[in-house]
Amino acid sequence: MQQAESRLRKTITLFLYYSLPMDFSQFSRTPPPPYYAVIFTSRLSSNNDDGYKEMADKMVRLASLQSGFLGCESVRGQDGFGITVSYWASKEAIAHWKDNVEHLAAQAMGKRSWYEQYELRIAKVECAHGKSA
Amino acid sequence: MQQAESRLRKTITLFLYYSLPMDFSQFSRTPPPPYYAVIFTSRLSSNNDDGYKEMADKMVRLASLQSGFLGCESVRGQDGFGITVSYWASKEAIAHWKDNVEHLAAQAMGKRSWYEQYELRIAKVECAHGKSA
Repeated sequence: MQQAESRLRKTITLFLYYSLPMDFSQFSRTPPPPYYAVIFTSRLSSNNDDGYKEMADKMVRLASLQSGFLGCESVRGQDGFGITVSYWASKEAIAHWKDNVEHLAAQAMGKRSWYEQYELRIAKVECAHGKSA
Repeated sequence: MQQAESRLRKTITLFLYYSLPMDFSQFSRTPPPPYYAVIFTSRLSSNNDDGYKEMADKMVRLASLQSGFLGCESVRGQDGFGITVSYWASKEAIAHWKDNVEHLAAQAMGKRSWYEQYELRIAKVECAHGKSA
């Protein structure tokens, strides 16, 4: 019985994993503050064709399945400079995602070869307002 | 004497204003945290050609002359979705810039017509690390 439940849970997770929209050039629907933002600015190396795109997509899908994930907004210009902001319920959720095994491997590849330069900032969102479409 | 000093100050300000680089698709050299980030995500309206670009450039130049301004990073995709993150020494510096007369006019135009949708988040950067080029 427990095994069946575990299989079902796994199937649902995989279904979610592969059915999530891949377009993050849209607005995250975040709750009222406080919550956390991870601001990741990066410039891709010229030799970033060894699986970067696939891994980046996979990491966003995987992040979005983590507990405490609130959303992700991302843009990259044609010059290779990009900004990705992900939103999280707590610092603990960010720390947990940072230590995810698959994510650790991606971080190592990013540092070693995909990114020529990057800066990662963790910030506590204190207030927010906007205009709806 | 005071008048001369005032004129000199104005000349230097204008010189800085027009000689600043316009490319913000580069990394800001921010100090060690804590400091503040204003995360502005936006989607341009389809009818944004009435002076948007000029005003946006002018606002970044003007912001960079404000007390407490630490830097600005900005990317806009071809679909009109963009992320601009500006960095500030304090919440007071952000509040002061928000109330700048020229900026108030630009904010009104942005809300009324340039942006189809936007979200502005004010966040306190608590930690940061990166990889240098």
